[in-house]
Amino acid sequence: MKNPLSAEILSVGTELLLGNTTNTDAKDISVYLSELGINVFYHTVVGDNPERLKSAVSIARNRADIIITTGGLGPTCDDLTKQVLASAFGLELIFHEELAEEMRRYFRETIGTNSMTENNLQQAYLPEGCTIFHNEWGTAPGCAFESDGVHVIMLPGPPRECNAMFKTCAEPYLRALSDDVIFSRNLHIVGRGESSVEQQLRPMMSELTNPTLAPYAKEGELMLRVTAKAKTAAEAEALTLPVVERLKAELGDVIYGIDAESLEQVVLERLKEGSMKLCTAESCTGGMIAKRITDLKGASEVFLGGAVTYSEESKIKVLGVDPSTIAAHGVVSIETAMEMAECARELFGADIALSTTGLAGPEGDGSHPVGTVFVALATESETYITQLSGGFGRSRVRNFASSCALDMARRYLEGLPVIVEYFKK
Amino acid sequence: MKNPLSAEILSVGTELLLGNTTNTDAKDISVYLSELGINVFYHTVVGDNPERLKSAVSIARNRADIIITTGGLGPTCDDLTKQVLASAFGLELIFHEELAEEMRRYFRETIGTNSMTENNLQQAYLPEGCTIFHNEWGTAPGCAFESDGVHVIMLPGPPRECNAMFKTCAEPYLRALSDDVIFSRNLHIVGRGESSVEQQLRPMMSELTNPTLAPYAKEGELMLRVTAKAKTAAEAEALTLPVVERLKAELGDVIYGIDAESLEQVVLERLKEGSMKLCTAESCTGGMIAKRITDLKGASEVFLGGAVTYSEESKIKVLGVDPSTIAAHGVVSIETAMEMAECARELFGADIALSTTGLAGPEGDGSHPVGTVFVALATESETYITQLSGGFGRSRVRNFASSCALDMARRYLEGLPVIVEYFKK
Repeated sequence: MKNPLSAEILSVGTELLLGNTTNTDAKDISVYLSELGINVFYHTVVGDNPERLKSAVSIARNRADIIITTGGLGPTCDDLTKQVLASAFGLELIFHEELAEEMRRYFRETIGTNSMTENNLQQAYLPEGCTIFHNEWGTAPGCAFESDGVHVIMLPGPPRECNAMFKTCAEPYLRALSDDVIFSRNLHIVGRGESSVEQQLRPMMSELTNPTLAPYAKEGELMLRVTAKAKTAAEAEALTLPVVERLKAELGDVIYGIDAESLEQVVLERLKEGSMKLCTAESCTGGMIAKRITDLKGASEVFLGGAVTYSEESKIKVLGVDPSTIAAHGVVSIETAMEMAECARELFGADIALSTTGLAGPEGDGSHPVGTVFVALATESETYITQLSGGFGRSRVRNFASSCALDMARRYLEGLPVIVEYFKK
Repeated sequence: MKNPLSAEILSVGTELLLGNTTNTDAKDISVYLSELGINVFYHTVVGDNPERLKSAVSIARNRADIIITTGGLGPTCDDLTKQVLASAFGLELIFHEELAEEMRRYFRETIGTNSMTENNLQQAYLPEGCTIFHNEWGTAPGCAFESDGVHVIMLPGPPRECNAMFKTCAEPYLRALSDDVIFSRNLHIVGRGESSVEQQLRPMMSELTNPTLAPYAKEGELMLRVTAKAKTAAEAEALTLPVVERLKAELGDVIYGIDAESLEQVVLERLKEGSMKLCTAESCTGGMIAKRITDLKGASEVFLGGAVTYSEESKIKVLGVDPSTIAAHGVVSIETAMEMAECARELFGADIALSTTGLAGPEGDGSHPVGTVFVALATESETYITQLSGGFGRSRVRNFASSCALDMARRYLEGLPVIVEYFKK
């Protein structure tokens, strides 16, 4: 067949249109298809309605080489995907005694009953001449067939079954159709905005075709994806290398990781590598840094704890900040932030301590604009301080301040300059 | 216009087709549309490709009364939703100096810089004659227009912006199109599972038609939505009243709020009403309770601070837990949890203190199963303790434990029995 192939994911289920469930099947299958080098150009969701499903199929077959349906293969009268698809492609549904037997066995062995209701047998009908996808995770089998130059793959809707059957049945079927392999690398960036990076990289993005380069903004961070296509995984990977090197040269150490899980995961790993212990003293971020670190497995190896000192008294009483520092400079100040980090480091007996104090909003303090946050990193020999300003509402100020703190730790642990201009904007 | 109206949600973004993000916008908007009595018959996802977007628009306008687009309104060259939609409906894009000025102000005030890149101004162009949807949560404005008998609504892609703008801008616009008024009440429940509540309420759900009753499970909580349709808001509201009363009688005080923003918001309000101050001492939840409370505006009025005592030493050194308590009973124990809460209450000078200690996993401690968490609430006169067991992975254990702690505070502040059986399962 022609390459690259294009696919449409056609999800069937009124529950999706009511917003009762999120279409994670389409997301998961999209990831798998992209790994297989198959372009996904459309997702369509349609309800349990034969007329509208039929119309969606007639649109899909005209614009895709592969139609992958999810849902509507079960035993109830709402489940009509097979009937509509078979009829659209002029195929009969054939009863498979072997599938009926599998179902009876499934009921006996897993549900422990012989009381399989008759409607379950509807699932043993599949389009004539199809490749049967046996379902080891539920009762509804899937299938694949080719008709009229279009490949149709039908998978059950429950995400566990859909994912498992894609991997074990649909993926081998699809691999046999295409020669290309896709490989991608994700570069993770914190501290620079999407539009400024995009402006800088625009010439490079338009010049590149294989690999391609695309930016994705996500919760105050930016991800750059470099995607290459080739005959083998090794070739595709080799194509990405020079682009990754160019990006590193272009952007430098604001790239906190390549194919990294998260900024906090990188910090956790650097702490482990250096056998260093971390603690926190948070005011305006209110526990967010501690939460992000302790979201991770293995946090207890590197994280000793933290103080959330939301009130002025708690900064003094819990952390031991000198009242005269606060009296002289205020709670939101360079001096208080630095002393919070230094006190926390002492209190918890940690190697490094992160602190935040600032105004997440919506109320200000009369002397600093909302969004002003001081972030400090105390180490054995030195205390670093960054002032953030501006922001986009309480949640983003907090999120950004916690990312800034984590990135200061990352930079320190990697031996980079701790303070960078990017954060000051 | 004819009723009921039908809508198609057209989400634009290559990241959706690559499976980098899940289409939660389509799900959320579907829920809102269903509350408005508008039928959703299709979701379509298309990439940042003008030809395919154009073709998707031409299909959608022939089968829907309302097209709601999400995504593709930003400043980068991939953002082409407005251009394609305007051209499909034969409308010019008009530059709005007022929007440009809003953007400049946004950059000055929130990012604290005059360095807004020129590409941002692309966002100030909107189709001629449209209703402008101002974006208070980001920079890209949305809009709505009617052309050729079809209503087009364009919303930005980031879920926070999309949701907020749907509620504040699109919903009033859509309400004006229909004669029926929809009114709904949400009952928020914590501590009971979806299937057990569903089983209990199934007869009631099948019996009801107007209002309807539907359950939605969400991050360890359950929401019951009662939705009525009538000619006026007052009539619709009146229809919901007896059902809400029946649900209250049926479920009792596990309902923590009606149309509540969140459990932590209810706790915050109860604390304010009682002029009470809260503090926390968190081990396995690692700052999550503090984070949830400080996510809220006005947290500083009621929250003094917290200790995240992840290590054994920090429980002793920071909180002042007696080492012999830990030696005798272990870190994960009723006694340690209670003492953590009592010590925190003293340390921060709070009226009530919440504590957690347990095993979020994946590693256990050899003596308790993963998922065991002790949650305590210390008050002036008494300390309450709940043991949680079981769990569904690290993130759910932590989330559930923090909800349980917050609900203990809520129950105490509302004068209800603090300890309930539900949590023990």
